[in-house]
Amino acid sequence: MPSAPSLNPILSLTETAMVEVNRIIVARMQSDIDLIPTLAGHLVSAGGKRIRPMLTLAGAMVADPEGSLEGAAKLAAAVEFIHTATLLHDDVIDESNMRRGNQTANAIWGNEASVLVGDFLFARAFELMVETGHIDVLGRLSKASARITEGEIEQMLIAGKPDTDIDAYLSVIIGKTAELFAAASETGSMIANGSDALTANLKDYGMALGIAFQITDDALDYHADEGDLGKTVGDDFAEGKTTLPVMMAYHAGDAEEKAFWMRTISDGDIRDGDLAHAQALMQSHGAITGALAEARRHAEQAEACLSDLPATPARDALIETAAFAASRTV
Amino acid sequence: MPSAPSLNPILSLTETAMVEVNRIIVARMQSDIDLIPTLAGHLVSAGGKRIRPMLTLAGAMVADPEGSLEGAAKLAAAVEFIHTATLLHDDVIDESNMRRGNQTANAIWGNEASVLVGDFLFARAFELMVETGHIDVLGRLSKASARITEGEIEQMLIAGKPDTDIDAYLSVIIGKTAELFAAASETGSMIANGSDALTANLKDYGMALGIAFQITDDALDYHADEGDLGKTVGDDFAEGKTTLPVMMAYHAGDAEEKAFWMRTISDGDIRDGDLAHAQALMQSHGAITGALAEARRHAEQAEACLSDLPATPARDALIETAAFAASRTV
Repeated sequence: MPSAPSLNPILSLTETAMVEVNRIIVARMQSDIDLIPTLAGHLVSAGGKRIRPMLTLAGAMVADPEGSLEGAAKLAAAVEFIHTATLLHDDVIDESNMRRGNQTANAIWGNEASVLVGDFLFARAFELMVETGHIDVLGRLSKASARITEGEIEQMLIAGKPDTDIDAYLSVIIGKTAELFAAASETGSMIANGSDALTANLKDYGMALGIAFQITDDALDYHADEGDLGKTVGDDFAEGKTTLPVMMAYHAGDAEEKAFWMRTISDGDIRDGDLAHAQALMQSHGAITGALAEARRHAEQAEACLSDLPATPARDALIETAAFAASRTV
Repeated sequence: MPSAPSLNPILSLTETAMVEVNRIIVARMQSDIDLIPTLAGHLVSAGGKRIRPMLTLAGAMVADPEGSLEGAAKLAAAVEFIHTATLLHDDVIDESNMRRGNQTANAIWGNEASVLVGDFLFARAFELMVETGHIDVLGRLSKASARITEGEIEQMLIAGKPDTDIDAYLSVIIGKTAELFAAASETGSMIANGSDALTANLKDYGMALGIAFQITDDALDYHADEGDLGKTVGDDFAEGKTTLPVMMAYHAGDAEEKAFWMRTISDGDIRDGDLAHAQALMQSHGAITGALAEARRHAEQAEACLSDLPATPARDALIETAAFAASRTV
């Protein structure tokens, strides 16, 4: 019986290079202002899967299996800085107090510091990219950065609106998640001088992977095994986020159910037992399984982008990462 | 009798090119998400002096009086976007409701939107810089962007501390203001292929100009003629900002006066008549005239950076801009 898809192949593939990426991350978050490394370090040391920098490294290894990863490591650190800056600003926006089981930076140091350290990391990301000397990579990641903020703004605009159509949701998750997955994979190929065709394949792979990853995340928010990884159920519900399982349950629901979703997600009037009722409605309409099926469809698209490439360890690790994205439980 | 120094020479010098800069600004703040141009346009149309993009253009014209300003105009728009992004984040941080006599973006659209549109404009700034194809310019402005956030964080850390020493204040204003003035002037020269010596001169000019400009701004906050430009007296006092006139009055004051500054600036316990009393203490210790003398000293340093250059309209306009920085009343 084959074991469940995991991140182990990409973790092994990038293990050595990630040591260097982590060294760069720590070195480049330093500043004469002690608060900057303290606050940034809080988020960096809190962990997270570090998928984005691993995608950059793996993209470079697909393009040039024997090449130096020096430039790719800097780029991977820059990609992680962009992601970390986004998280810092997200927590301010969501007024979140907890992330991955830890207090958020804004809860400890205040919104001002979180906004500014986010800005600092974003600027540092561009400094790192400049050092790679690859202006096309800078162009790609500055475009991605603008698109990320568009996705976040779209997310804000559909919050509290369970009657949103699926296309608007897809645009949100492409912006807030898939665009950086795509740019991370694609620029890995670019910096390793991958062909235009390969770079385009890796972009499409990252985009489909990011969509699968985010849909799964949104489903797990109503369904996860709460374990020691700090994944908690119900955060999106409490914040009134419009995500795929909510939309699926809403659109399939009768008038009384629609009224329930409007009261909770739209009006923010959440009472004891509402989360369990929301989960029961999702169960009765197959909204979680439906969302996970949609994630699997995108994961399969991601795998297909790489299926014609030679079977190298890097390609195989990326294919298993796609399978993991749609099957993970944490 | 010579007329008072003004921005008229640099306004005339850059008038044609600024039409193009403004066109780029409007074109590049567009997005499919209507809220982005609406919110960004609120700040952009509120005016402001647009000194930073004019410095970039004038820097390019000093380096190459006959050259095309196509690249410099894109760069100038990028510099203004970085500044606008900073203002959007500042207003969130300061919890400001008014800027230049208008409601702030965060007061109208909320903190979330202001943080995200600031991020969007910052990303767009880098897209514009990439289009100039000049990676050294990108390196300079990403470094400046990191230093700006350091200055803002330092400002946060000295807020409410009138007993701060002058060096800490200088580091704040170098970060929050002078660094971008320096980078704007310097990269104008870089993009017009100015010599290394000229580029260094323009950097030093912009740095001294920015210091003079900010010290004057801080003095005017206790002293301005409140006119139709929306400049209001007392904002810094209400926010407990540690600025040069406060520090000068504090350090020169007796124990009772020091206690007054601690109660108002540090504890934020501000009562009727306190602003007038603060102004009277500044008057009695010559703190405003002392701050303005310090501004003039930096403005003269700025002028000296350009004194050995050939007397072109661009050089002369920059010299008069320095004189204006230390003598303006609005």
